[in-house]
Amino acid sequence: MSLLAELDRSDFAAVGAELHQFAADLYPICRSITGEGIRKTLAMIRERVQLQLFDVPTGTPVFDWVVPKEWNIRDAYIKVPGGDRVLDFRKSNLHVLNYSIPVCATLSLSELRPHLYTMPDKPEWIPYRTSYYKEDWGFCLSHNQMLALKDGEYEVCIDSSLVDGRLTYGEFVIPGRSPDEVLISCHACHPSLANDNLSGLTVATSLARLLLEKDLRYTYRFLFIPGTIGAIAWLARNQRTVSNIRHGLVLTCLGDTAAFHYKKSRRGDALVDRAAANVLAYSGEGAQILDFSPYGYDERQYGSPGFDLPVGCLMRSVWGTFPEYHTSADNLEFIRPAQLAESLRMCVAILDVLENDRRYRNLSPFGEPQLGKRGLYPSGGGESIAQEVLARLWVLNLSDGGHSLLDIAERSALPFQAIHQAANILCRGGLLSPLPEAGDGEVVSSEASQSNRQQRL
Amino acid sequence: MSLLAELDRSDFAAVGAELHQFAADLYPICRSITGEGIRKTLAMIRERVQLQLFDVPTGTPVFDWVVPKEWNIRDAYIKVPGGDRVLDFRKSNLHVLNYSIPVCATLSLSELRPHLYTMPDKPEWIPYRTSYYKEDWGFCLSHNQMLALKDGEYEVCIDSSLVDGRLTYGEFVIPGRSPDEVLISCHACHPSLANDNLSGLTVATSLARLLLEKDLRYTYRFLFIPGTIGAIAWLARNQRTVSNIRHGLVLTCLGDTAAFHYKKSRRGDALVDRAAANVLAYSGEGAQILDFSPYGYDERQYGSPGFDLPVGCLMRSVWGTFPEYHTSADNLEFIRPAQLAESLRMCVAILDVLENDRRYRNLSPFGEPQLGKRGLYPSGGGESIAQEVLARLWVLNLSDGGHSLLDIAERSALPFQAIHQAANILCRGGLLSPLPEAGDGEVVSSEASQSNRQQRL
Amino acid sequence: MSLLAELDRSDFAAVGAELHQFAADLYPICRSITGEGIRKTLAMIRERVQLQLFDVPTGTPVFDWVVPKEWNIRDAYIKVPGGDRVLDFRKSNLHVLNYSIPVCATLSLSELRPHLYTMPDKPEWIPYRTSYYKEDWGFCLSHNQMLALKDGEYEVCIDSSLVDGRLTYGEFVIPGRSPDEVLISCHACHPSLANDNLSGLTVATSLARLLLEKDLRYTYRFLFIPGTIGAIAWLARNQRTVSNIRHGLVLTCLGDTAAFHYKKSRRGDALVDRAAANVLAYSGEGAQILDFSPYGYDERQYGSPGFDLPVGCLMRSVWGTFPEYHTSADNLEFIRPAQLAESLRMCVAILDVLENDRRYRNLSPFGEPQLGKRGLYPSGGGESIAQEVLARLWVLNLSDGGHSLLDIAERSALPFQAIHQAANILCRGGLLSPLPEAGDGEVVSSEASQSNRQQRL
Repeated sequence: MSLLAELDRSDFAAVGAELHQFAADLYPICRSITGEGIRKTLAMIRERVQLQLFDVPTGTPVFDWVVPKEWNIRDAYIKVPGGDRVLDFRKSNLHVLNYSIPVCATLSLSELRPHLYTMPDKPEWIPYRTSYYKEDWGFCLSHNQMLALKDGEYEVCIDSSLVDGRLTYGEFVIPGRSPDEVLISCHACHPSLANDNLSGLTVATSLARLLLEKDLRYTYRFLFIPGTIGAIAWLARNQRTVSNIRHGLVLTCLGDTAAFHYKKSRRGDALVDRAAANVLAYSGEGAQILDFSPYGYDERQYGSPGFDLPVGCLMRSVWGTFPEYHTSADNLEFIRPAQLAESLRMCVAILDVLENDRRYRNLSPFGEPQLGKRGLYPSGGGESIAQEVLARLWVLNLSDGGHSLLDIAERSALPFQAIHQAANILCRGGLLSPLPEAGDGEVVSSEASQSNRQQRL
Repeated sequence: MSLLAELDRSDFAAVGAELHQFAADLYPICRSITGEGIRKTLAMIRERVQLQLFDVPTGTPVFDWVVPKEWNIRDAYIKVPGGDRVLDFRKSNLHVLNYSIPVCATLSLSELRPHLYTMPDKPEWIPYRTSYYKEDWGFCLSHNQMLALKDGEYEVCIDSSLVDGRLTYGEFVIPGRSPDEVLISCHACHPSLANDNLSGLTVATSLARLLLEKDLRYTYRFLFIPGTIGAIAWLARNQRTVSNIRHGLVLTCLGDTAAFHYKKSRRGDALVDRAAANVLAYSGEGAQILDFSPYGYDERQYGSPGFDLPVGCLMRSVWGTFPEYHTSADNLEFIRPAQLAESLRMCVAILDVLENDRRYRNLSPFGEPQLGKRGLYPSGGGESIAQEVLARLWVLNLSDGGHSLLDIAERSALPFQAIHQAANILCRGGLLSPLPEAGDGEVVSSEASQSNRQQRL
Repeated sequence: MSLLAELDRSDFAAVGAELHQFAADLYPICRSITGEGIRKTLAMIRERVQLQLFDVPTGTPVFDWVVPKEWNIRDAYIKVPGGDRVLDFRKSNLHVLNYSIPVCATLSLSELRPHLYTMPDKPEWIPYRTSYYKEDWGFCLSHNQMLALKDGEYEVCIDSSLVDGRLTYGEFVIPGRSPDEVLISCHACHPSLANDNLSGLTVATSLARLLLEKDLRYTYRFLFIPGTIGAIAWLARNQRTVSNIRHGLVLTCLGDTAAFHYKKSRRGDALVDRAAANVLAYSGEGAQILDFSPYGYDERQYGSPGFDLPVGCLMRSVWGTFPEYHTSADNLEFIRPAQLAESLRMCVAILDVLENDRRYRNLSPFGEPQLGKRGLYPSGGGESIAQEVLARLWVLNLSDGGHSLLDIAERSALPFQAIHQAANILCRGGLLSPLPEAGDGEVVSSEASQSNRQQRL
């Protein structure tokens, strides 16, 4: 079964509109790595897929880290004494240094200045800054806003709390025929930033809904987590589950108009790396495969040496390299319905390779079989052949038991989808037979997955 | 012994003239995959080398295929009722859709049109079309000829027969010291087309004559066969012989003025692939090595997964990519004597690598031996050295038992011929000794090859 | 310990001046592969490092060679009978064909001409020519000098001797913790040529002095030898020592202004090859890694198949490719103090990799350790990180026991020095631990090395 062929029957305009609307709904929430913002976000995802939520108390050791205090914020501002707010958290939650401790004081401008963050080279934009692990407070504002501040006294207030509480993340499992898992992970801890965060969240949510209805080879595990500490906490609490993970994707920055970029897993030649490379090669001009690096999103945790999981990262623009990254310009206009929908299609195309890559045996391996008599070859000799016929010849030629469909797609420089379709046609024509693979016909029987199956019904 | 050094003493102008004349003699014959045309062709080759001819009856199953009915044609035309021929098979055998069933009818132009094949983008050329495996009839003509046809009735006649008969191919074996074989295969089934067919046939014939006189390491097997069905029939009937094939070349499109192209065998790193790559690298600008693909000439049958023979394909222009391909413009002017002769030299150069590639041992491996005292090194210090001296240094440096001459040629980026010559000189100088190889000193003693030897005498 | 970090505290202007002065002191000596010239040179090196000198008598067989007669020269000239010298050895020792046999004769210009060597395309320069192994005599002069010679008789005198004597070379060993050796070899046989010879000699001498003071992992063996015959003689007399050589460098052409070039060892992937590749990649524009070839300097002897030692060759301009090579233009102006000093630094950088490359284990391999709480990570989230932080992440990510620091530098495309520094910091932070390596904690206890240690004191 081709997940991709099925998706391609969808109304992509409607798919894109729904993705963008969900991002718009999530946009105003002031998220952080802990607190009500991420919980509200998970609750809204839960209206779409039946996430299971997990709480980890402040102070819990997770490997080398400790779950931090929970941060919440109600209001924040800078104002002229007795006058109007000159900076107002209610206008943008980026205005507060994320994880700021509470403060309520009257300060001169020069005392205030070390607590102000701006971008002189982008004077209209508000930067996004955090201070999770060092207690501090601050305000982020546009450079022009800062220049407009006159000397004098200011009333400064951050009505936040940083106290013992819990870190919350969401998990959603769709059982497949095999207990082998595909991990889909995205971070849910950024406040009003659209591409870096909401695009990943919304695409992952739609992807989960889409897989729900399907007969799947793999079990799919979706994580909606705070970045870094969330991935580390999940890994620390799920060390047995980790050993089932065969492939994985971190999803982020999937809504802008750039070409696709895939950052390879630490292994560099994992099946998911090769699947993404084949799919991206036919995804349009400018798509690029990037080598692994231990800096980035949570692929760096999944790819730490103690785990070395084959988890790559799918993006359009690469975090850290586009001007809007971690600024107020990463807003709802920066992400587009059509691009979000195409990103969802890209995820499905990659999973489609994972689901369908297998080895076949050519049942007529001595010379070419006579495709013409089966209607699988143009009858008029002397003319060139179409890609679909070429794909059949490649599948027949390399289906010697040693090459999988992805191997064949790579060697022939054809899209996996064309090779997969050729294999299906040749099987129906009696010329090809699938070889048994690990997981064929297996039934997942643990109670946990039973209950998950029930969830789906 | 260097086959190439010997050939290089020839008069290449005479070699080229003879090749082109033979092509001219074969050109008018209306060949197809069965019938008198190919038999007449094989008979003319047999005047030069003692081909053995084999007949396979119609209806014989050969793997997934069945030998088709035999096709013969005496005449064909389209004419205005009671008037002149407007299209005449006697002017060009390309005018008939090859394998046309007999037809004799009077048709309106609109009834006739679906049976007419033209090339609108090359309005002066006649296309070459076939319908081997679907019973049909038709005419091929220049687009201008078709445009000149006026509305009205036409008398249409194809005086052909398609009846039970036989498929005929020719085979010629030159025994060598070893039963290990080199396969040289070319198709002999195209009618008046010069580059795509006759160039391969004529070069193969001259190559066979040239090897006849030599003391050879390998046994050489030449096949002159109808494309696809001929290769499949031969493979089906010679499954034991197949296991002796160590290297092979399909020869085609060797007469035009393009640079050489070599399409690698399915294995991609077979010795013949590496030999051809080395030889082509020094054959002039534009020569290219192409990856294997399961579309092309009979290398796709030899490279089917049940056989996986190391057989590549040597060409100048690549089939399907030059405008004259499968048209009346692939004529005797399109192929040139000098190019045919140079192609023959290219084949010999590749075989020369196969014949002479072996490992040697440096008998003075500690430091460089003193070449100067043996007259093998320029005595004046301080100057640069010639390629022939550099080749000696490379052969000495890498002849540690682990590297063959071709390995050394590849690493040094020098022509195999220079490396081989250096090895000969170093052997004579007592500095190098050949290592025993499989086949050294072996005598082919089977009766079949005895009789073949006698053929040569 | 980082040899490089320590060197980088030096006054490079002073280092360069000293190197150039030493080259200037050595420049006037008429060196050859035997004789007083090389002995005087070795004596001057001995004033800086306690070389051990070895003599090999004329006639001694060394592998395929025999140590030649010893050559010495006192004077040589061409003069108009009874008149002035028109060519004078006292003005340039390049004027005599090196190894010229004695001659004293009166000849016409046409008789003299076959004994004259010039460079028509560089009419002002004197070429350098030798005739070590064929008894001959000759003069080298500028083309303009030759054109100025008028027809007539000339008195020709070469006051040389070529008689039984000895070949002399120098050797210097600095013991390290392990008996495994690094070989540093340079030729000391060229007369007044600066880049091709003196630059290598002087840099090697300074390198030896610099290592003298250090606690070293490897034992370092420096050879100052006549080219080719010296290397072959040393190899023939030290076959047991050879088995201790783990890495090696031939040093030559290190004083001109070209970018660095490193010619790989025969193995092509030896540690020294990889070390040099990493160091050169960050040494400035134009640096190049060249493949091994059996033509060049003594790396061709060390890389002969009987030894196959991992010895590469470090240069700036590549011998044979720059116009000044083996001419009078390779003089003291052609080499520069700053370039000599930078070349010394380059050697140290390469040895620094050899000394410090080892594997470590990440002690916190599950997820990333929290670098921030240790002051090893910027506390402000949302900003990009510096190369030094990235190096820490790479070291942690790949220190799984399977990757050495050089492996990590290669994969991360970061300088080895940055990776090494990161490893040191992480070790101090308790996050990393070195894995035991061969040679750790070993003490060299043989008498020979004891005495060498004493030499150092």
